Amino acid sequence: MSREGITPRSKDYSQWYLDIVRGADMADYAEVVRGCIVFKPTGYAIWEAMQSGLDQRIKATGHVNAYFPLLIPRSFLMKEAEHVEGFAPEVAEVTRAAGEELAEPYVIRPTSETIIGYFYAKWIRSWRDLPVLINQWANVMRWEMRTRPFLRTSEFLWQEGHTVHATEAEAERETLLILHEVYADFVEREMALPVLKGLKTDREKFAGALRSYALEAMMQDGRALQAATSHNLGQNFSRAFDITFTDQQNTIQYGWTTSWGISTRLIGALIMAHSDDEGLVLPPRLAPTQVVVVPIYKNDAERSQVLETVERITAEWKGRLRFKVDDRENLTPGYKFNEWELKGIPVRIEVGPKDVEKGSVAVARRDIPGKAGKQFMDQAGLTDKVVALLETIQHNLYDRALRFREENTYEVQNYAELQAAVEKGFARCYWAGSTEDEKRIQDELRATIRVILLEPPDHAGRCIVTGQETDRQVIFARAY
Amino acid sequence: MSREGITPRSKDYSQWYLDIVRGADMADYAEVVRGCIVFKPTGYAIWEAMQSGLDQRIKATGHVNAYFPLLIPRSFLMKEAEHVEGFAPEVAEVTRAAGEELAEPYVIRPTSETIIGYFYAKWIRSWRDLPVLINQWANVMRWEMRTRPFLRTSEFLWQEGHTVHATEAEAERETLLILHEVYADFVEREMALPVLKGLKTDREKFAGALRSYALEAMMQDGRALQAATSHNLGQNFSRAFDITFTDQQNTIQYGWTTSWGISTRLIGALIMAHSDDEGLVLPPRLAPTQVVVVPIYKNDAERSQVLETVERITAEWKGRLRFKVDDRENLTPGYKFNEWELKGIPVRIEVGPKDVEKGSVAVARRDIPGKAGKQFMDQAGLTDKVVALLETIQHNLYDRALRFREENTYEVQNYAELQAAVEKGFARCYWAGSTEDEKRIQDELRATIRVILLEPPDHAGRCIVTGQETDRQVIFARAY
Repeated sequence: MSREGITPRSKDYSQWYLDIVRGADMADYAEVVRGCIVFKPTGYAIWEAMQSGLDQRIKATGHVNAYFPLLIPRSFLMKEAEHVEGFAPEVAEVTRAAGEELAEPYVIRPTSETIIGYFYAKWIRSWRDLPVLINQWANVMRWEMRTRPFLRTSEFLWQEGHTVHATEAEAERETLLILHEVYADFVEREMALPVLKGLKTDREKFAGALRSYALEAMMQDGRALQAATSHNLGQNFSRAFDITFTDQQNTIQYGWTTSWGISTRLIGALIMAHSDDEGLVLPPRLAPTQVVVVPIYKNDAERSQVLETVERITAEWKGRLRFKVDDRENLTPGYKFNEWELKGIPVRIEVGPKDVEKGSVAVARRDIPGKAGKQFMDQAGLTDKVVALLETIQHNLYDRALRFREENTYEVQNYAELQAAVEKGFARCYWAGSTEDEKRIQDELRATIRVILLEPPDHAGRCIVTGQETDRQVIFARAY
Repeated sequence: MSREGITPRSKDYSQWYLDIVRGADMADYAEVVRGCIVFKPTGYAIWEAMQSGLDQRIKATGHVNAYFPLLIPRSFLMKEAEHVEGFAPEVAEVTRAAGEELAEPYVIRPTSETIIGYFYAKWIRSWRDLPVLINQWANVMRWEMRTRPFLRTSEFLWQEGHTVHATEAEAERETLLILHEVYADFVEREMALPVLKGLKTDREKFAGALRSYALEAMMQDGRALQAATSHNLGQNFSRAFDITFTDQQNTIQYGWTTSWGISTRLIGALIMAHSDDEGLVLPPRLAPTQVVVVPIYKNDAERSQVLETVERITAEWKGRLRFKVDDRENLTPGYKFNEWELKGIPVRIEVGPKDVEKGSVAVARRDIPGKAGKQFMDQAGLTDKVVALLETIQHNLYDRALRFREENTYEVQNYAELQAAVEKGFARCYWAGSTEDEKRIQDELRATIRVILLEPPDHAGRCIVTGQETDRQVIFARAY
C-alpha cells in the first residue's frame, strides 16, 4: 500500500525521493536560478534542527563561530591551484558591480579555505595564537550540471570549520575529534542514522588534504551517501597562503590546518534513510514537531468537550515536547492525518468524544504505519508515556537502519562477489590495490571505495585485486 | 581617563568607533574583498545573540523560516524597476559560471522581494493559502562606495520577513506587529536601546512601499541610527510579480504584501549606544559572556585554594549565567582585566587569597568603570546577587541611554532652533512641509526627517516651515 502521489520505493526509488520532497512540501525547484532550490519552511525547519544539534557540539568541543566574505578574489583560487593538485571547482563569477566591470573578478565561495587562509595568515603570529578553532555557517555555490533537491544543488547551506594547529599531531587529533564527537555523534544520535567511519583513499580525498575522513551511511536503495567529511590539510594550505607562526624556539613554522563540513545534503540523507511509501519519517530528536494532536468531533458540543480535554492533556507539555494541536476548521481528520503522515511527524494523537468518555487517547506511531503502530493510552500519565514512546521510536529508527545496513553489507572475497554485492548494497573487502585498480573498478562497476574502515578487522586477509595480505578493509559501494 | 589604543569619544567619535571595533576584536577589514568585513568571533557571537532573540520573537508571532536563492535573474530587477519608482540598487552581477558566459546574468540579492515574490506567485492560489508568513536569515550584497564596519558594508547579514495577506488592513496590522512586538521589544529589552517608533516620509520610505515604519535610536554623538524597518508594500510587488489569489467570492485579487528587516548594522548601533572610552559595553541580556571570573594568586598553594573557591562558587551557575573562568596561565590579572573590559563583559569577579580567607569576592561592573563600580560580595548567596546585578546593569544601560536621548532632544519652534538642535541631537517639531521642504533642509542642514512619530502629541502646533497647524510631529536628525 502506498499513498497517492508517492511512487513506491520498489517501483522507482529516485522518483519516490522526489515525491517525498514535494509531498512533504520541503523544497521547490528554483527553475529561474540554475540548479538552485527554495528550502521551504518544512525543509528549512529540519536544517534548523540540524544546525542546533551541530552547533552545540561544535561549541562544546571548543570552537567559535565567525563569518568571512562570500566573495573570493579569483586570484586566490589560482594561487590554490598552484599548490593543490586536482583543484577545479565549478565556480560562479562576479565580473560587474554597480554597473561597472571589475578589474579583478570575484568568485562566489565554493568553500572558504583560501579566503580564510588569507586572514589566518594575517592574524597568526606566534604559537600563543594557536590553536585557531573557527567555524562558519554559510551558503556556498558550485555550478552543478545535474541537480537533485538537497543532494546536489548549485547553492547549498553548510557549516565549514577551519582550524590551525602548531603540530601535525594536534591537527590529526582535531580532524578525528570532529569526525567522532561532532559528526558521528550528531548523525547517529539525533538523525538515528548509523554511519561507517573511515579514511578516504587518495583518489577520493579532498584536493589538498593530507588525509580526508568521512562518514558513510547506507540509503534504502543500498547506495552510500557521504554524510560528513573532516580533512587534515597538513601544511598544504598554510604554504599556499603563508600561514606561519613563531614557535617556542623562536623558529618560523607553517601551521597545520584542518577543515570539515556538513551540508544541507544531510536533509537528503535523512529522507532516504528513514522515509517510507507513506511519506517522510522524522526521528523524534530532530523533528521540529514531535507530536501532533488532532481533535475529532461532529458538533459544537463534542468540539468543546474534546478541545477541553486536548487543552488539559497538553497543559504540561510545554518545554517537554515539541507539539502542535491541529484545530484547523473545515478540514477532515482524514485530511489532517494524511498531511502529518506525509510530513513525517513521529507521533499523532487523536482525541474524540469516546476518548473523552473513556479517559483515553489514540496514539499512532509514524515509524510503524497502519494498525500495527496504533494503540490507546490513558490520559493519566500521558506525558511520560509519550516522551518514552518518542525515545522508543528514535531507537527503532536507528536499529532498523543499522539492521538494514548489516543485511545489505556483503563480505566479498573476489571480483565476482564484489560485482554482485555493489548491485545490492555495500561490499566489505580487504584492499591493497592501487589508484589505478580503484579507477578500473569504478569504470566497470560504477562503485567506489567509500572508506577505508577505521576499525581494524579481527584478522588480516587477502586483497580482492592483488591477493596481497593486508589488514586494511574497505567499503565499496555506489554512491550519491 | 581613556584606555591606550582607544581614542576618546570627545576627541574623535568616528575614530573611537573604529578603535572599539578593533580593540574588542569584533571585525577585520576584508581589504581584498571590496567593502566587506570579516565578522570575527567576538563580533559574530553578538550577532548570534541577536539572531536568537529575534528568531524567538519572529516565531512566537506565527512566522516560519525558509531559504530562497542567493542569485536573482537580472530581469527580475528590471521588472521591479518598471513597477517601483526610485529603485536602483548597486548590485554585484554574476555573468560567468563554470567557465562560460551566462545567457542571462544574475545579481546577488540586495534584498529578496523579487525572487520571493516570484515563488509566492507560484504557491498562492486561494484565500486558504493566506496569510503567508515567512522569514529568511541571509547574507545580502549592496556595492557600497564608503563603508564602515557593521554600519555599512557591501555584504551584510540580516533577516528579511516577507508576508502576503488577503487585505490591506491585515498587511498593515502585520507591519505594525513586527515593528512593536518583534523589533522594538527586542531592541529595547535585549539591547537596552530605547527607540522612537514612527513612519517614514515619502522621501525616506522604501522604494515600492506604501508605508515604511522604522525604529530610530540616538547614538552617543547625537546622531540617529535606523535600527529596523517594517514596510507595508501594498499591492506594488504583487502587481509586479503577479501574486494573486481567489477570494471567498471567487474573485481574483492581488495580495497585500509586507517586508521587514534587521541587519548586522545593529551591532554598530549597540557599540555606539553603550560603549565608553574603556571599550565595548554589552547589555547583560545580549552578552554572549555575562560574567568573567579571574582567579588571582602568586604561588601554587594560593592557586589551588583560589581555584577551589572559584569552582565552588561557579558550581551552580550553569544554566543560570553565561560565564567564563579565565584561568589562562602566564597572563597577569591586569592583562585579563584589560581584555575583558575592552570586550565589554558586563561583570568581572576577582577571587584572590584574601577573598578565600574572608569568604568574599570582588565584583566590578562594566557599566560603571573604575572604583565606583567595584564592590565586595559574600560568597554565600552569590549567584542570586550576580543575577540581580546583571538585571540592574541592563536597566541602568537602558535608563542611561534614554536619559541621554531625552537630554539631547530639543523641541524646536523655528528654523534657527532646528539648525542649532541638529548640531547636538534630535529636533522634535510639528511638520506639514512638502518633500521639497525636506530636501532643502537636508541640503542646508544635513539633517533628515527620521520618523513621523506614531504617538500623537498632546496638542496640535504649527509646522516649522509652513506655519500650518498640524498634530503631526517629526524627528529631524543627522543620521548614520
